[in-house]
Amino acid sequence: MKILHKIKDVRNFVKEEKGKNKSIGLVPTMGFLHQGHLELVNKSLADNDITVVSIFVNPAQFGPNEDFESYPRDFNRDISLLKEKGVDCVFAPPVDEMYPENFATKVVVRGLTETLCGNKRPGHFEGVATVVTKLLNITDADRAYFGKKDYQQLKVIERFVKDLNINTKIKGIPIVREKDGLAVSSRNIYLSDDERKSALSLVKSFDVVQNLLDEGERDADVIRERVIDFISGFKNTNIDYVSIVDPETLEYKGLIEDKFLLALAVYVGKARLIDNKIF
Amino acid sequence: MKILHKIKDVRNFVKEEKGKNKSIGLVPTMGFLHQGHLELVNKSLADNDITVVSIFVNPAQFGPNEDFESYPRDFNRDISLLKEKGVDCVFAPPVDEMYPENFATKVVVRGLTETLCGNKRPGHFEGVATVVTKLLNITDADRAYFGKKDYQQLKVIERFVKDLNINTKIKGIPIVREKDGLAVSSRNIYLSDDERKSALSLVKSFDVVQNLLDEGERDADVIRERVIDFISGFKNTNIDYVSIVDPETLEYKGLIEDKFLLALAVYVGKARLIDNKIF
Repeated sequence: MKILHKIKDVRNFVKEEKGKNKSIGLVPTMGFLHQGHLELVNKSLADNDITVVSIFVNPAQFGPNEDFESYPRDFNRDISLLKEKGVDCVFAPPVDEMYPENFATKVVVRGLTETLCGNKRPGHFEGVATVVTKLLNITDADRAYFGKKDYQQLKVIERFVKDLNINTKIKGIPIVREKDGLAVSSRNIYLSDDERKSALSLVKSFDVVQNLLDEGERDADVIRERVIDFISGFKNTNIDYVSIVDPETLEYKGLIEDKFLLALAVYVGKARLIDNKIF
Repeated sequence: MKILHKIKDVRNFVKEEKGKNKSIGLVPTMGFLHQGHLELVNKSLADNDITVVSIFVNPAQFGPNEDFESYPRDFNRDISLLKEKGVDCVFAPPVDEMYPENFATKVVVRGLTETLCGNKRPGHFEGVATVVTKLLNITDADRAYFGKKDYQQLKVIERFVKDLNINTKIKGIPIVREKDGLAVSSRNIYLSDDERKSALSLVKSFDVVQNLLDEGERDADVIRERVIDFISGFKNTNIDYVSIVDPETLEYKGLIEDKFLLALAVYVGKARLIDNKIF
């Protein structure tokens, strides 16, 4: 497995493989890999001749008061996991390789980025869209893999890839969960044992919603309130948002007539956890 | 010469040529071709196996009170000029092919876009950066050609292509001038005979600057004032800006110690003309 830190080395690697008519799959990550990432890697390995995994904690997608500095990192463990999987290449650039002096460009997506996490984390999706554009261009990927846990991120990426005519297929992969249902996340490491129990309130709230729907409830605000009450009943939870939106436009829904996305962001202790489900 | 209107047809054409190891040159234009465009075409034909010329009057780079609707167009004449040159492919998409419903993305460059024309034409360079990103991705160009008359545009394009790691070499081509020195421009067609004479004030002001430099003048504001006075002495001129800036950062210069860019934008009648020279 190649471990590359320079953009030009990745370009050369990819160029050589493409010259042999090999297809390229990209799995962009911020490292500290968990089963969710490895599922993306599995899909890429199955679909493509060559799989490139990027490991880059992207400062541009963290707000000034967010956890960029403390975001968990374990490069050596990541490398051995990826080697075991049979990944062909890891791209792990330093920050100044991705954002050299005089860097001045951003990719901005209107609309989709203005609700949910975009509303709570200003600049976050610009940071995501910019770095993903760079990674897709650097790796010239035929396919790139993203988890549905970051549902809004997936929709934003699908949008700008289409809008900018980037020649990569974007693949969304279902959420991977622990045995008890908690969505796997690098930030789960922040949770104490007690908080771990409270963190289950997110996935458990899906049952609350399903029960209300089964009872015939169609008022999205009533459902939201019941979810808020449910999660707030757990210790150390602090709701960032509970939203019911259209799964395509991510726009607010008042009345439920069709399928919808329940999207959750909840602080449990200091960990900001997200989860979602389409009903 | 192929004339294509659909993105997917261009992709297929380019893919086939690249499969034969052909290099691709792109000349993006808004049509109504003049000698300046044809010079870009000449360079592309010389450097590349395949030359694609795009003809697209890009609504996203015009302000609400600008000349999008009246911008001169002559598709048939453009086509015969390009056929004569030996161009391989013309890409002439309709607006809704480039900006379909729900289009929501823009490429934004900070700093460089905030002076000169960027200051006078809000959103202009976002429109340029977005459409050029699309065209580069659609054509997968090895090289793309832009005139130095639009000096700021060239700098903005160089910037975001580098920042987003787009794998295309950007080539800047010297300004083409009429015999009397007027920079060729599609908008020159707006000029009456009298205005045509006043339009020469832009290129003639370069001599004013050179004389001042020869006399030892180093105060950029003094030079600016003398250029403003000179151009204002011609009938029907209305100065949009006269700027002396650093040729790389496009930042204002007060004292001349090194090389600088004189950049001009002047309305002559209803035509907004630009010109520039590095001293």
